[in-house]
Amino acid sequence: MIERKNRLAIIASKGTLDMAYPPLILATTAIAMEMEAGIFFTFYGLNIIRKDRKNKLFVAPIGNPAMPMPMPNILGMLPGMTSMGTMIMKGMMKKANAPSINELLEICRESGVRMIGCQMTMDAFGLKKEALIDGIEVGGAATFLAYAAEAAVSLFI
Amino acid sequence: MIERKNRLAIIASKGTLDMAYPPLILATTAIAMEMEAGIFFTFYGLNIIRKDRKNKLFVAPIGNPAMPMPMPNILGMLPGMTSMGTMIMKGMMKKANAPSINELLEICRESGVRMIGCQMTMDAFGLKKEALIDGIEVGGAATFLAYAAEAAVSLFI
Amino acid sequence: MIERKNRLAIIASKGTLDMAYPPLILATTAIAMEMEAGIFFTFYGLNIIRKDRKNKLFVAPIGNPAMPMPMPNILGMLPGMTSMGTMIMKGMMKKANAPSINELLEICRESGVRMIGCQMTMDAFGLKKEALIDGIEVGGAATFLAYAAEAAVSLFI
Repeated sequence: MIERKNRLAIIASKGTLDMAYPPLILATTAIAMEMEAGIFFTFYGLNIIRKDRKNKLFVAPIGNPAMPMPMPNILGMLPGMTSMGTMIMKGMMKKANAPSINELLEICRESGVRMIGCQMTMDAFGLKKEALIDGIEVGGAATFLAYAAEAAVSLFI
Repeated sequence: MIERKNRLAIIASKGTLDMAYPPLILATTAIAMEMEAGIFFTFYGLNIIRKDRKNKLFVAPIGNPAMPMPMPNILGMLPGMTSMGTMIMKGMMKKANAPSINELLEICRESGVRMIGCQMTMDAFGLKKEALIDGIEVGGAATFLAYAAEAAVSLFI
Repeated sequence: MIERKNRLAIIASKGTLDMAYPPLILATTAIAMEMEAGIFFTFYGLNIIRKDRKNKLFVAPIGNPAMPMPMPNILGMLPGMTSMGTMIMKGMMKKANAPSINELLEICRESGVRMIGCQMTMDAFGLKKEALIDGIEVGGAATFLAYAAEAAVSLFI
């Protein structure tokens, strides 16, 4: 029988601003609860840990009828509406006193959240390690699975 | 070593009609198998448990090439196409004899599925507890993680 | 206490080309690490195991601001842009020396990944077992949960 540690193992695969919060909030909360936590950033999730992230994380109002303020697709299509969706999301998270993505990443780094960038996706996207923020380890699906096999909780986000 | 209970812990983060089914179907199936089950509703997933949900859960055909009947984006953009996608999905689930979202929520409540609304997202969206259906507990990421740490199965939907 | 096997249990619910890779890559990696692995294909995830899959798996650039080369929604809407997004994704995966979806499915089959098609979704979509590739077992949410309850790692993709 495999050991079960008090550990949270997350795959972060989405690169939109809204889906950048859950892995970071869950990992930092886990640490606060004295669990171990690790995040494997893969596919679009790599956007979260890019140095030039500021220009990479958006919320697209189009094709997203679940936005708190959904707009007709024909409006969401207009240039500028993606940045408006992004602004709305940032404003909402601030209203809830949630830390920013930048602050969450800093807490992750300082509190010892293990952060792994997916080698295969980095190759696919032509991303070098230097393009990622500091403190990122590079690994593959096997690195994640070995870590997750002993985790109490595993989540694909 | 952490105890491992015969328990299913779900995060429901999506607010589209199609992605409202999986958490509810999985939780009610778990109960039928004599497992414990709990769902943490966060981000757009809060839509599933809003009293005014009827007007909130849609399927957007746009940007969704995996729809059974995908349509060109230029068509999906036309006003009315989101409600057509929604109608198609409801018809398909009926054909499969699947209960409606309303029925599934009722079974959840009656069979003791633990249902938690995410405090932080409620603050961000400006949602009060009164806006949610009855029987919802309000909590945070820590509430979910404490529950999931002892679960046999955890899923982020 | 439930037994915890060295097993990976995956739900594949997405039918886009980009989200077809993660379940197949994770399952085949698990097998290479001498774990057991199983995938439950449900909702749009059924597209991955359709015989006529070739014409079913796309990447939609619209409403997806996290694409490596995001394009304005107004451009993504033009006919042809979905096939361009698909071509870009295939080219990128090839650059990373990743096997194709076809090759990954073949490895799954040969290495004993348990592959289950969701009965309810098949009914909803009007899909017969004959429409699926060989080697697929048909089952329900209960089949998946019974398998996942003993898994070390469960993921909803």
